[in-house]
Amino acid sequence: MSGHFIVIEGLEGAGKSSAVDVIRACIEKAGLPHTQVREPGGTPLAEALRNLIKQSWQEHVSAEAELLVMYAARVQLVRNVIQPALARGEWVIGDRHDMSSQAYQGGGRQLSQQMLAQLKQMTLGDFVPNLTIYLDIDPAVGLQRARGRGELDRIELENLDFFERTRARYLELAEQNPNTHIVNAEQPLAQVQQDIRTVMQRHLSLAR
Amino acid sequence: MSGHFIVIEGLEGAGKSSAVDVIRACIEKAGLPHTQVREPGGTPLAEALRNLIKQSWQEHVSAEAELLVMYAARVQLVRNVIQPALARGEWVIGDRHDMSSQAYQGGGRQLSQQMLAQLKQMTLGDFVPNLTIYLDIDPAVGLQRARGRGELDRIELENLDFFERTRARYLELAEQNPNTHIVNAEQPLAQVQQDIRTVMQRHLSLAR
Repeated sequence: MSGHFIVIEGLEGAGKSSAVDVIRACIEKAGLPHTQVREPGGTPLAEALRNLIKQSWQEHVSAEAELLVMYAARVQLVRNVIQPALARGEWVIGDRHDMSSQAYQGGGRQLSQQMLAQLKQMTLGDFVPNLTIYLDIDPAVGLQRARGRGELDRIELENLDFFERTRARYLELAEQNPNTHIVNAEQPLAQVQQDIRTVMQRHLSLAR
Repeated sequence: MSGHFIVIEGLEGAGKSSAVDVIRACIEKAGLPHTQVREPGGTPLAEALRNLIKQSWQEHVSAEAELLVMYAARVQLVRNVIQPALARGEWVIGDRHDMSSQAYQGGGRQLSQQMLAQLKQMTLGDFVPNLTIYLDIDPAVGLQRARGRGELDRIELENLDFFERTRARYLELAEQNPNTHIVNAEQPLAQVQQDIRTVMQRHLSLAR
């Protein structure tokens, strides 16, 4: 049996790391083999690309260059790690995937949806996650949490309007995509975790 | 008056550096301001991307990731350096440009022409060089010269078939494009330089 690809998405401070822990615990409890990855990153070249694109530069980083680096890292990860793991029957937990580019570079940076659709098609073809959990949070709340954790990277330093547009696009995508579940990340942590567990249990029972 | 973008193209060992010197001397003799760039590279981020994509990795580098990194570097260079220099009226001498991706990733790596055309359109739109000089050389001869210079990078380590396909695509593109001149780079150096000077003098006289 081929594995499943489970992705967690959301703005900075939405609680993705904690959500990954809950998802992994559900998969472990079901006795399934699993692999954990993050985007951008997850392979030697992709992690090097992550470092380049998240750091600040003495020049303007064009939105197109940012997008192309994200897709370069993504295609490395999908071809070299995610697809081989799925083929071995493992469940793969992804901290961000394609929806991040659609939301951040499409919504936040306002790059054309045609460009994003073409890039997605040329790199991923029809490859999509089996389940995406989107942690929805007001960006003002999320950014306050993220700032409390320490220094922000180049993209996290964008203004609030950028993150409002990113969230709006996330919500549109989540509503259009039947494999995506929205979890309200402004609830108390225990309730957020319970909501994720409920989504995972339903998915696991259908996957068997 | 807006400047002109002059590009030198060719396989490893074709003599691009020496050709850049000849082109620069022609432009200086005409008393025109100029800027020199190379691809991939030419901005801080683009040079960092160049280092990543030319080095060897402990993983397979997918052809798509390689191509996307090349275009990320290219869009940075065009937006931040080449187009501003042209707008200031400078002549820009480019050591490689888009034709390299068409030849190496399209011809050598056999990526689809549709994918390359889409990437070119989304990053560069209708931006094209005013003149491209393609130095044509048998890859066996070029690689021997390049090996004589020292260590080869990840792409230069490809097999001869890869470079045969790259050269074939270069020749196709050069024949299709009226702004491209082919110079036989297997001639004695003085004749190669004379051929480049002739092309440049004709271009300069038409540009005035």
